[in-house]
Amino acid sequence: MNDTLDFDKQSGLITAVVQDANTQRVLMVGYMNREAFEKTLSTGHVTFFSRSRQRLWTKGESSGHYLVLKSIATDCDGDGLLVSAESIGPGVCHNGFESCFYRSFRGGAWVETEARAYDPDEVYGARK
Amino acid sequence: MNDTLDFDKQSGLITAVVQDANTQRVLMVGYMNREAFEKTLSTGHVTFFSRSRQRLWTKGESSGHYLVLKSIATDCDGDGLLVSAESIGPGVCHNGFESCFYRSFRGGAWVETEARAYDPDEVYGARK
Repeated sequence: MNDTLDFDKQSGLITAVVQDANTQRVLMVGYMNREAFEKTLSTGHVTFFSRSRQRLWTKGESSGHYLVLKSIATDCDGDGLLVSAESIGPGVCHNGFESCFYRSFRGGAWVETEARAYDPDEVYGARK
Repeated sequence: MNDTLDFDKQSGLITAVVQDANTQRVLMVGYMNREAFEKTLSTGHVTFFSRSRQRLWTKGESSGHYLVLKSIATDCDGDGLLVSAESIGPGVCHNGFESCFYRSFRGGAWVETEARAYDPDEVYGARK
């Protein structure tokens, strides 16, 4: 069923863009291998392959801030996924923001454009 | 000015998600090296590094369907960009669709979920 997807172009990984199903805000970008893609479909919880930890990583597994899958699309080359999801919890970013894209380039510098949605120390504790 | 961006994690490239500034639809995913990022800022036309052609590629350079930069954000790791742009032309996908994400996973298969926005043969001709 995954023949449309091209996992070979990026050494087994596909870029996965997560968009909030309700607000249309882009929340984060992660990477999925075939197993992560299939686990996302079977569990309904968006799951990535963590490049830094080299293992499957279900968003929310430690914070409880799961991303509940609503729909999933692929692009013309089959090497990108657009995941529409509902976010459980105040934010997806481990730094405490609603979206990982909380900094914009303005006047020649990157500036934070929003306030934190939650205290990451309370959610992630020493592991942050 | 780009110290925030981490071009090293993906061999000189950063993942760039393009979102329509008006509709919030995610249109495509491309990759930028530092030169592409700086050209995007200086020209206002979204420019990528084409991995297949191994050169800078300004979206619209052959079709006229430029992406006009509105704003640009980066994520917590600095290895992703969210580019908000206005699309000049009926679609960004070289297959004739408004968005490259024109196929969704439904009932165990990838299905086209929309009609073409333009005839790619008329725009790209034999080069398609």
